[in-house]
Amino acid sequence: MRKINIGIIGFGNVGSGVIKILQEKKSILREKTGLEINIKKVCDKDILSKRNVNIDRKLLTKEVRAVTCDPQIDVVVELVGGISPAKEFIMEALANGKSVVTANKLLLARQGRELFSYARDRAKSIYFEASVGGGIPIIKSLREGLVANSFASIFGIVNGTSNFILSRMSLHNCSFNEALKEAKQKGFAEKDPTLDLEGLDSAHKLILLVYLGFGKLVALNDVFVEGISKISLADVNYAKEMGFEIKLLAIAKKESDQLEVRVHPTLITKGHLLASVGGVFNAIYVSSDFAGNLLFYGPGAGQLSAASAVVSDLVDLAQDIKAGLFRSALNICEDREIRRLRKIDDIEGRYYIRFMAYDQPGVLAKISGILAKFNISIASVTQKEHGKEKIVPIVMITHGAKEKQLRSALAMIDRLGVIKQDAVAIRIEEV
Amino acid sequence: MRKINIGIIGFGNVGSGVIKILQEKKSILREKTGLEINIKKVCDKDILSKRNVNIDRKLLTKEVRAVTCDPQIDVVVELVGGISPAKEFIMEALANGKSVVTANKLLLARQGRELFSYARDRAKSIYFEASVGGGIPIIKSLREGLVANSFASIFGIVNGTSNFILSRMSLHNCSFNEALKEAKQKGFAEKDPTLDLEGLDSAHKLILLVYLGFGKLVALNDVFVEGISKISLADVNYAKEMGFEIKLLAIAKKESDQLEVRVHPTLITKGHLLASVGGVFNAIYVSSDFAGNLLFYGPGAGQLSAASAVVSDLVDLAQDIKAGLFRSALNICEDREIRRLRKIDDIEGRYYIRFMAYDQPGVLAKISGILAKFNISIASVTQKEHGKEKIVPIVMITHGAKEKQLRSALAMIDRLGVIKQDAVAIRIEEV
Repeated sequence: MRKINIGIIGFGNVGSGVIKILQEKKSILREKTGLEINIKKVCDKDILSKRNVNIDRKLLTKEVRAVTCDPQIDVVVELVGGISPAKEFIMEALANGKSVVTANKLLLARQGRELFSYARDRAKSIYFEASVGGGIPIIKSLREGLVANSFASIFGIVNGTSNFILSRMSLHNCSFNEALKEAKQKGFAEKDPTLDLEGLDSAHKLILLVYLGFGKLVALNDVFVEGISKISLADVNYAKEMGFEIKLLAIAKKESDQLEVRVHPTLITKGHLLASVGGVFNAIYVSSDFAGNLLFYGPGAGQLSAASAVVSDLVDLAQDIKAGLFRSALNICEDREIRRLRKIDDIEGRYYIRFMAYDQPGVLAKISGILAKFNISIASVTQKEHGKEKIVPIVMITHGAKEKQLRSALAMIDRLGVIKQDAVAIRIEEV
Repeated sequence: MRKINIGIIGFGNVGSGVIKILQEKKSILREKTGLEINIKKVCDKDILSKRNVNIDRKLLTKEVRAVTCDPQIDVVVELVGGISPAKEFIMEALANGKSVVTANKLLLARQGRELFSYARDRAKSIYFEASVGGGIPIIKSLREGLVANSFASIFGIVNGTSNFILSRMSLHNCSFNEALKEAKQKGFAEKDPTLDLEGLDSAHKLILLVYLGFGKLVALNDVFVEGISKISLADVNYAKEMGFEIKLLAIAKKESDQLEVRVHPTLITKGHLLASVGGVFNAIYVSSDFAGNLLFYGPGAGQLSAASAVVSDLVDLAQDIKAGLFRSALNICEDREIRRLRKIDDIEGRYYIRFMAYDQPGVLAKISGILAKFNISIASVTQKEHGKEKIVPIVMITHGAKEKQLRSALAMIDRLGVIKQDAVAIRIEEV
């Protein structure tokens, strides 16, 4: 029985989960793979606090180099998160001939190019199944299961916190702030949930999905990112009345020779499976040329689901290391049909728009006149009853329109005297 | 660049698809994997008919042994289907040191034990991603992506034909026969659709899912199988009114030390993702100990989706062969907590029941009296208006009940003078 030695850096939530799984499933994994994955070292700044796993204290160390420089360690698991010093840990591990497993989407999304090429130059691998979609084997599926396929689009609900909040607003008719409060109470939102709510976490994951699906490592700057913090209960409810759910969607879409890469709140028709993804669950919907349209759904976060993904990477690496196999290209190949990224201004789609206007004659005529001037045609419109303030919400769904045209039209409408506050526009996707 | 030579037996629908993909994606697959998958021979009884792919006629042969005995061929793809002679072809390929890729669920489900052990003894592999769920990488996910997990249950909609018919009845308010006719017109049902409609195809796939998830190759005789041919539009509609959809579900469920393995029409709450799986799509819903509840969804059939799965197996095998890696256990491990299979009589669950009774006083009292005698309590009951014949449908949902008790109660009720025809009972699953 070949033993693969691993060192874990980061004895936090996921780290403990990995240790728990490797301990509990030791004999099962051995039977399944013919290999033993042996925890040789566990490194953390804090090696004293009690965790919910038992581990031989002799394995614990505060010295990162005791892991990254241990000649007996085959694979280093990086679970520190963030850019620095996680990046340095990974580089050092690679430099010392170790392969790396990480859940660090932020680091890979922002500095993946350097890290992946550094690894490749040393004939070592960086595996990162846990970085997107928790325990959902989406990375393996894109890379191996769908290896024969090219992709037309990838749509993902990849941030559990945002999805919890939006589902909650829709299901329980509560405000964004109430839903956020509940998410915090349940441990589904961090103290500072900015990365999650403003769409950055989704953008990091999308960058990795785009890398896998289209072979391009796009820069964060090239991803249009809009979060959910401005989504109001009113919009959630109006959207519902019109047959839609609002979801924070990570979108990669190939349109002729261009690729759109964007994250924003999106209206999805209720009939679509993505609209039914509730709570902290994640789902990735993929359109492929041969295998068709596929959905991968599961808990997107959580100690053990991420740990499950880390262990699957460890098993793969262990088998490869045993066989002396190095998958240099990670089964990734650049889609050369794509010539450039499409800017958000140039995308075309339908929109949900809500205007708040004073209840005066001619308002609708003015609004629709401006929209017409910008070539935006209206698919449906509902004028709601006004409240005390005599301000009426006018809710519209447009036909296909260019984002730039829409923005110009809305800017002009927002300046009308009859308009009380800036229009809210949310993109609709025909997934 | 290492070249892997393959031979394909069966130049039909899926065979042509595999050739098409390998031709179209030749350079992409080479770039992704560093390997070339080279079609060395294609065997079929009919090598004259025109297919929708161009292939060098010199590669075509009617002699199976030209494939199975060619010393240069590394992998044989068996796409003949059925038991004999597909089994002999596979055995001969293995005997000659080749690994095998197949989509043949029927053969593997019925004779897998012999085939897998024959392969193992020769240190060769049988891969079968295309046998369940078309292009959905469910087998790879269970085997590799979820390698760290044990499973509590697997629920699958794995027969596209049946799902098309049930969805159609539900969505278009048409009868079973009308839906079947449409399925045939659209090419979603074979001329003789018995295997599909009577649940046998689902049972074959379930046997493979159980093998992957629980490490047990159960016999077809040990699977309870009931098809959809007796599902009436009335039941579809009553179920809908009560918040359910009827689906043909392949179920594997661990209950303490027992495993239930069964295929039958099942009521699923509308809120569940499985209830939204429409048309010819497939979905597999898996409950795992670490990665949680996951859903894998996609087209369950079709030339190219199955071919996509075959090619992913070919790539995996090619990489393993190149590295001299043999995965003897296929990452499968027997779940030793399971001591025996639970017989259908012993399962416990809720039921949908429809009685057709003459509209007379006291009918409900008689029925509910008998149910009470068998310890079956009623969660809800609706008595519908009768039609011309003065026969009223009485529709019930029970609380948890033992199948055996329920069957006894229904048998007794069916003998009542007030009952016009045998009761219809459909199991409800809380997925």
